[in-house]
Amino acid sequence: MMTNWIDISVPLYTGMVHWPGDPEVQVNQQQIDVEGTPVHLTSISMSAHTGTHMDAPLHFVNGADSMDAWTPDATIGAVRVITIEDRIAIHAAELQQHEIKRGDRILFRTANSETNWVGEPFKKRFVYIAKDAAEYLVSLGVQTVGVDYLSIGGYVNDMVATHVAMLTAGIWVIEGLNLSNVDAGSYEMVCLPLRLKGADGAPARVLLRRLP
Amino acid sequence: MMTNWIDISVPLYTGMVHWPGDPEVQVNQQQIDVEGTPVHLTSISMSAHTGTHMDAPLHFVNGADSMDAWTPDATIGAVRVITIEDRIAIHAAELQQHEIKRGDRILFRTANSETNWVGEPFKKRFVYIAKDAAEYLVSLGVQTVGVDYLSIGGYVNDMVATHVAMLTAGIWVIEGLNLSNVDAGSYEMVCLPLRLKGADGAPARVLLRRLP
Repeated sequence: MMTNWIDISVPLYTGMVHWPGDPEVQVNQQQIDVEGTPVHLTSISMSAHTGTHMDAPLHFVNGADSMDAWTPDATIGAVRVITIEDRIAIHAAELQQHEIKRGDRILFRTANSETNWVGEPFKKRFVYIAKDAAEYLVSLGVQTVGVDYLSIGGYVNDMVATHVAMLTAGIWVIEGLNLSNVDAGSYEMVCLPLRLKGADGAPARVLLRRLP
Repeated sequence: MMTNWIDISVPLYTGMVHWPGDPEVQVNQQQIDVEGTPVHLTSISMSAHTGTHMDAPLHFVNGADSMDAWTPDATIGAVRVITIEDRIAIHAAELQQHEIKRGDRILFRTANSETNWVGEPFKKRFVYIAKDAAEYLVSLGVQTVGVDYLSIGGYVNDMVATHVAMLTAGIWVIEGLNLSNVDAGSYEMVCLPLRLKGADGAPARVLLRRLP
């Protein structure tokens, strides 16, 4: 069977990059003996906001929806990958060229995807969604937005403003994507977050394939 | 858009059932203040073999494939749900009625799905795949097998024998499914495990929908 799925999730491992202040990722691999057979047992410890993951509205909005409100339509189906030229931030002026529409699912491929960021130290000046672009996406009524670093908002600028604007509007957010092998265009996406009860976010696995 | 996906993953939360000896599941929810905005930050700690998850061959076989060898074909596509009548174990004799074929993906709905097992204490006598059924499935050359409790092998019987038979053969295994809302029949499945580098298993989210 030909499927040609592209895995746009980053691998999870001990020592990988994480948001400053979040707990370290620990992937522990133990081996025990059961009736003479070697049994391997992995355990994990991590922030729900590390690696490839989703944000629920609750992440920045008291009383808002948790991951329990996630529905498959939010992250399964057609998606557009848009290449961003600006190497500092995503602004409304650049987005206006792309005819983004109500209900769209959009992934932004930025200069972040030029490096293997998951294996490098945390980068304060990653390309982020500026407040004006966040408000533009809210005004359009997009359904879902994905980015290729750990946060939609910047570390230096608009971390709170961008999250509050997009999460208050109920936009579903995917962060920590690896879009290095993906060109601009139309795709089918399957993104499934772990079912973490009542959580403000969840680690996810995300695949794309080209629409014919 | 009509999708009608059925979520057959169990929720993950502190205090949920787990295999005896495995670490407790901890889903910790913290709230901090960032520039006057409440930010909610979930972190998790758990075995990779708790809740709805996959086993890689490495789980019971030294040197065998880890989750790195998982391919989308293993768990995305057509799947059959088979209802098991035996309330103790799945045996080859019962499976022979079902015309299982090479390459099939199969989920077994057993008496385990009659209770909300994820919220109950660990049950030693859950319905499991007996060694004779494991060897039968290997002889048929099925691709993927899913079960509705935490293990393909029993706690009392065939824990090692069933895992070793199926994992040595490279069958992909999904455990910890909730099939209480699913009838026997043909479905489309999407099961995505977290991308845990080199791991013997990984938590997963799994959805089904009826094939027309």
